[in-house]
Amino acid sequence: MSDAQSESLSISQRLRLQRMRHEISAAGGDGFIVPLTDEHRSEYVGDYAQRLRWLTGFTGTAGAAVVLADRAALFTDGRYAIQARDEAGKLGIEICITPGQTLGQWLGANAPSEARIMYDPWLHTPAELSRIESELRRGARLIPAAFNLVDRVWSDRPSPPTALAEIHPVKFAGSTHDTKLKLIADCVRAVGASAVVITSLDSVAWALNLRGRDVRYTPVVRSFLVVDADAQAKLFVDPRKIGHDVRDHLGSAIELHDYQAFERALASLAGQRVMLDPETATAALYRALEGADVVEAQDPCVWPRAIKTPIETSGARAAHRRDGIALCRFLHWLETEGLDEGVDEIQASVQLESRRKTLNLYREPSFATISAAGPNAALPHYVAKQGAARRLTRGTLYLVDSGAQYEDGTTDVTRTVALGSPTEEMRKHFTLALKGHLAIASIRVPVGTSGRLLDPLARQHLWAAGLDYATGTGHGVGTCLSVHEGPVFIGRHGGTRPVDEPLKPDILLTVEPGLYLEGQYGIRTENLYLVVACTGADGGDGWLRFEPLTLAPIDRSLIDLCLLSPFERDWIDQYHARVLKEIGPDLDDDARGWLQRACAPL
Amino acid sequence: MSDAQSESLSISQRLRLQRMRHEISAAGGDGFIVPLTDEHRSEYVGDYAQRLRWLTGFTGTAGAAVVLADRAALFTDGRYAIQARDEAGKLGIEICITPGQTLGQWLGANAPSEARIMYDPWLHTPAELSRIESELRRGARLIPAAFNLVDRVWSDRPSPPTALAEIHPVKFAGSTHDTKLKLIADCVRAVGASAVVITSLDSVAWALNLRGRDVRYTPVVRSFLVVDADAQAKLFVDPRKIGHDVRDHLGSAIELHDYQAFERALASLAGQRVMLDPETATAALYRALEGADVVEAQDPCVWPRAIKTPIETSGARAAHRRDGIALCRFLHWLETEGLDEGVDEIQASVQLESRRKTLNLYREPSFATISAAGPNAALPHYVAKQGAARRLTRGTLYLVDSGAQYEDGTTDVTRTVALGSPTEEMRKHFTLALKGHLAIASIRVPVGTSGRLLDPLARQHLWAAGLDYATGTGHGVGTCLSVHEGPVFIGRHGGTRPVDEPLKPDILLTVEPGLYLEGQYGIRTENLYLVVACTGADGGDGWLRFEPLTLAPIDRSLIDLCLLSPFERDWIDQYHARVLKEIGPDLDDDARGWLQRACAPL
Repeated sequence: MSDAQSESLSISQRLRLQRMRHEISAAGGDGFIVPLTDEHRSEYVGDYAQRLRWLTGFTGTAGAAVVLADRAALFTDGRYAIQARDEAGKLGIEICITPGQTLGQWLGANAPSEARIMYDPWLHTPAELSRIESELRRGARLIPAAFNLVDRVWSDRPSPPTALAEIHPVKFAGSTHDTKLKLIADCVRAVGASAVVITSLDSVAWALNLRGRDVRYTPVVRSFLVVDADAQAKLFVDPRKIGHDVRDHLGSAIELHDYQAFERALASLAGQRVMLDPETATAALYRALEGADVVEAQDPCVWPRAIKTPIETSGARAAHRRDGIALCRFLHWLETEGLDEGVDEIQASVQLESRRKTLNLYREPSFATISAAGPNAALPHYVAKQGAARRLTRGTLYLVDSGAQYEDGTTDVTRTVALGSPTEEMRKHFTLALKGHLAIASIRVPVGTSGRLLDPLARQHLWAAGLDYATGTGHGVGTCLSVHEGPVFIGRHGGTRPVDEPLKPDILLTVEPGLYLEGQYGIRTENLYLVVACTGADGGDGWLRFEPLTLAPIDRSLIDLCLLSPFERDWIDQYHARVLKEIGPDLDDDARGWLQRACAPL
Repeated sequence: MSDAQSESLSISQRLRLQRMRHEISAAGGDGFIVPLTDEHRSEYVGDYAQRLRWLTGFTGTAGAAVVLADRAALFTDGRYAIQARDEAGKLGIEICITPGQTLGQWLGANAPSEARIMYDPWLHTPAELSRIESELRRGARLIPAAFNLVDRVWSDRPSPPTALAEIHPVKFAGSTHDTKLKLIADCVRAVGASAVVITSLDSVAWALNLRGRDVRYTPVVRSFLVVDADAQAKLFVDPRKIGHDVRDHLGSAIELHDYQAFERALASLAGQRVMLDPETATAALYRALEGADVVEAQDPCVWPRAIKTPIETSGARAAHRRDGIALCRFLHWLETEGLDEGVDEIQASVQLESRRKTLNLYREPSFATISAAGPNAALPHYVAKQGAARRLTRGTLYLVDSGAQYEDGTTDVTRTVALGSPTEEMRKHFTLALKGHLAIASIRVPVGTSGRLLDPLARQHLWAAGLDYATGTGHGVGTCLSVHEGPVFIGRHGGTRPVDEPLKPDILLTVEPGLYLEGQYGIRTENLYLVVACTGADGGDGWLRFEPLTLAPIDRSLIDLCLLSPFERDWIDQYHARVLKEIGPDLDDDARGWLQRACAPL
């Protein structure tokens, strides 16, 4: 992008902020909160809900902004610190890094004492609003707006998506939606409720064995679901999205209603006991259910969705084998042709995606590929922009974090590769982060251990060297669903999530410690693992271990053998032997030869 | 002990249980709870409060019993599982291991539906009682007893202690009691209260720079303290314990009252706002303060006591150097004479104590020495009994966990030594547990990391081998005070304690992972560490590291070098070099020669 282009973009965005302030004032407010989410509290949202990006230019996947009359601030986490400064900082928006600096604290310090800070009640949970409110100055208040004020200014805002819903067949799900609805109904009865309102898009998709194309990267259908204690359900969805096949699939136990009718339908639950997940239900839902007796409980889909069925785990293994073929073909191409051809970050990610596209059951990427050369990889969630992509050059590190949605599974993998010869320091840093990865990958843990407690295991070797990373260490993954799925996470901060959820057999977890040195390079080795119960042969009852699903070589030239224990070295050798055995047969001679070298014992 | 003696003991103790049941029934109850604590919620209690031991024969330091009309149960943690079975199991008392099986759950399952379960309100916190009550069956209730029912049966119960209180001089404390009372008063004012009631014996001793001889192993004075917002205080203590020197030391800001007057004095706080720590204040206190407005907050002594003054940290270093001399002399004696002389566990512990007794500023052991040969060490808190002590023999492991109270510091150290040649498996197990120790000892952690999060670091290498230990990993230590001191612990379960307290500079923490194989052997390597803030030279701001205080060799013959990383090996070599440098000059030629060999590089 030329400087002139960049300048004109800034001016256009300054106008947006200016008009936004005009709207706030017209609505009788002193400020407005712009989160990055939708009515379903989704992490990835449809274009129609990309309000934060439209207003601030920030393209990260987590954040929120506040606009006041004379200043504005953007809140995001450590992963996006540098990117937020580059993208939104130039508009004069202050950048605050959570959890150190929160939106509530900033408002408490900067909003006038009698300020009326407005928000869209469809985008916030009551708990989130309470936290903000508790930090405001005496007299300042949060006020629900009658409509989203950004939408008043955003004249060419896209319409909500109308893509057709698709059936996710039992041969990939391992369980019918009848069975799942009965399971949900059991939970409803267990808390003495007459119905549960399910608002998370991945919960609805999981429960009904539906997939969709409403949100990029996440195959969900924009909809709400209400399930009663007898496993009868109402699905609220744009009728244009439901073809005959899906209508037949859903069957008679599921009534179809328009998405727009949802709020009114909630009012009809007045007088009943209704189950709602406070983690995901927005303030607008609580308001619509004012006449009902709300019982707060975890979304009943969360745990059964996380614990994969036997068909889902074999699907995950198959999807990862195919994905590994694409990644190995790409890494081979990169080393033998790409680097010599002087490709840039976007060309590289196109090459990788083109190799995935040829594979069976491929749908789309599971998130925006992070194809990051040299210092760009120090932004943990960097996404290259057309016209500003960096060339891959010798003597630097290249980090590629990517994944795909396949009908039978979702992948998420990061490899860091040395282009040419790495420095001693690069090798040391890579190996310290890798040792953290291996500490979790190779462990056996007692049943009941929480994901959160594993986090320091991944950091210990970096810590010992006075280093750390600002991101989490791992997350769950869906089956052809969200690439970030709860309830188990490995990380220090769980935000508002219940962070001490225990590991259980048959859940999927990524392990992805890294190191990010601003202006220099970024490092991350990420595999997806299936948590499996140990048997007599490998530890006996009461223990869990991690089975690698991801199959791709870890760059041997970046491993400093002096820093590895014999045990760690063995683990890598065994892992590489498996990669070669499972991926090798599907490569051509050239690539297989490359893979043999890449997987040779250390 | 002969079988006949053991038999007669059992009969006498069955009678105690029988009489206890008679008392319960006479008081109109169906059961009685017998915890192991005192009115101050102490961990170590005076003989007068050893009700659990008297009733059940259980000699562990943590537990509780419930007596019903037809059955009884003892609850203790994993450390004491085997011991509880041996000691109380033979009376027909069921042994339940917490936290898996709790007293409340057992009562819920076994107490009749209308049962009246009685308790002594001076020995339980309201939170503890609520937890139990929530698990009772419908109709069953907890009823405070007018007096402790055990005391009605225990005809020869010892009187409360009358030892003289002693001054803990500022040259060891580093801070006057005037300063400490002002600090406490600041906390009282900060919560808008007019007074705080301090019930923990180590808090009272810390606040007033007093020490005592009322409780074995813990130099405290049986007393309560009330401090008001102006730093004026009332000390409730048996007047026979206060000599002229202590009266002068306390000064005019501290009024003396009889221990017995405490409950009445609380009634006089009616109408005032009174600060109370719910972790330690008993139900009887809450009842006595019914007319007051109780504000719950952490005992204001907890954090300032944990964060040692510069004088306390240099005292701790000095005390540990002296203690190391005694331990090294003992280990040398054990290897060169003790083993050949065929000593038993008690003789060995007497030898160790005799070497400590000659040292400057020595007071008493800081807990009952665990001198455990062979399979006895599989009981993590084994205490040898006269007449039943095991001989130390070649081909076995010997574990000695001991510590001392010195005027300038408290020590707590465990060494496991191979008598003769250890087996390959012993060396593997010892090294895996040692690697866990080193993972914490050698780490740098970001400020704000909680002790709890460090726990998996100590277990990871054992876990990877399918092994674990049922005890915690580490605890704070006082200055000539409790050998177990909060608020920071390293462990999975914190009981009722706030377990996520962050590490801070200048606190003391033990690190003591181990392995306990029933019928075989026990392993533990325990050092005490000072947590120190890193400086520019060793990591910079925002990082903490562990400085070893304990100085004694780790048995080289038990270390399997193949399992150590170069980094771990370096750590041990450097530690041993320091031990030799600091302890060597105080040993005679023979012992110094031994220490040189024990501390030789790996």
